[in-house]
Amino acid sequence: MPNSETAFDATCLFCRIAARELPATIVRETDDFLAFRDIAPQAPTHVLVIPKQHGYRDAAELALGDPALAAGLLAEGFEVAKLDGLTDHGDVPGYRFVLNSGDAAGQTVYHVHLHVLGGAALGHFGARG
Amino acid sequence: MPNSETAFDATCLFCRIAARELPATIVRETDDFLAFRDIAPQAPTHVLVIPKQHGYRDAAELALGDPALAAGLLAEGFEVAKLDGLTDHGDVPGYRFVLNSGDAAGQTVYHVHLHVLGGAALGHFGARG
Repeated sequence: MPNSETAFDATCLFCRIAARELPATIVRETDDFLAFRDIAPQAPTHVLVIPKQHGYRDAAELALGDPALAAGLLAEGFEVAKLDGLTDHGDVPGYRFVLNSGDAAGQTVYHVHLHVLGGAALGHFGARG
Repeated sequence: MPNSETAFDATCLFCRIAARELPATIVRETDDFLAFRDIAPQAPTHVLVIPKQHGYRDAAELALGDPALAAGLLAEGFEVAKLDGLTDHGDVPGYRFVLNSGDAAGQTVYHVHLHVLGGAALGHFGARG
């Protein structure tokens, strides 16, 4: 678990959003998590969910370092999906969770974040065509 | 937590793979998880990781019903990524985890499964173009 000295990184874009130093369209906040809309959405719903605590670079580090927080991140993604009406009664019910790790996957911010996507039929999710 | 009566579903494709009733290219197996290659890969590495136990339809159900198993699923995905050389030293290091829920996301088997993708530059992961 990151100690308190690493819980906030002033050079981290997502830490700065969580600290309200940078603007974002926030959709949910709990003690542990913040959810805000991606600025380059790939679907009608495209929300990023982060643990507020800095120190976990990707999903694997989080799952190994703090399993309860990793499961909590997925559960929080579900809350976001419910909030945007994706779980039951939407025109196109369903949603996708994506967790990228490293350059090949297009990860640009090394503060673990869960993508929650939905609101349209979702397509392929692998290599570029 | 599913009871023993629901731990195996004879109508579930993935339960039948785990029981070796249907063929699959298995890459890893532990007491709790099975990892096998997707038959319609979207990237050079495209592996599905499942908890052997039936009863959790998607990531949210798993995270809410058995948080430790949900974190374990992500950790097991990381083991698969390491096995295929995606974590450090590949030509294109990095990998993607995808968890689909519902029709809109293209989920076809309602036994929770983690997609692990990599081995090439990965593209968009949202709505169809």
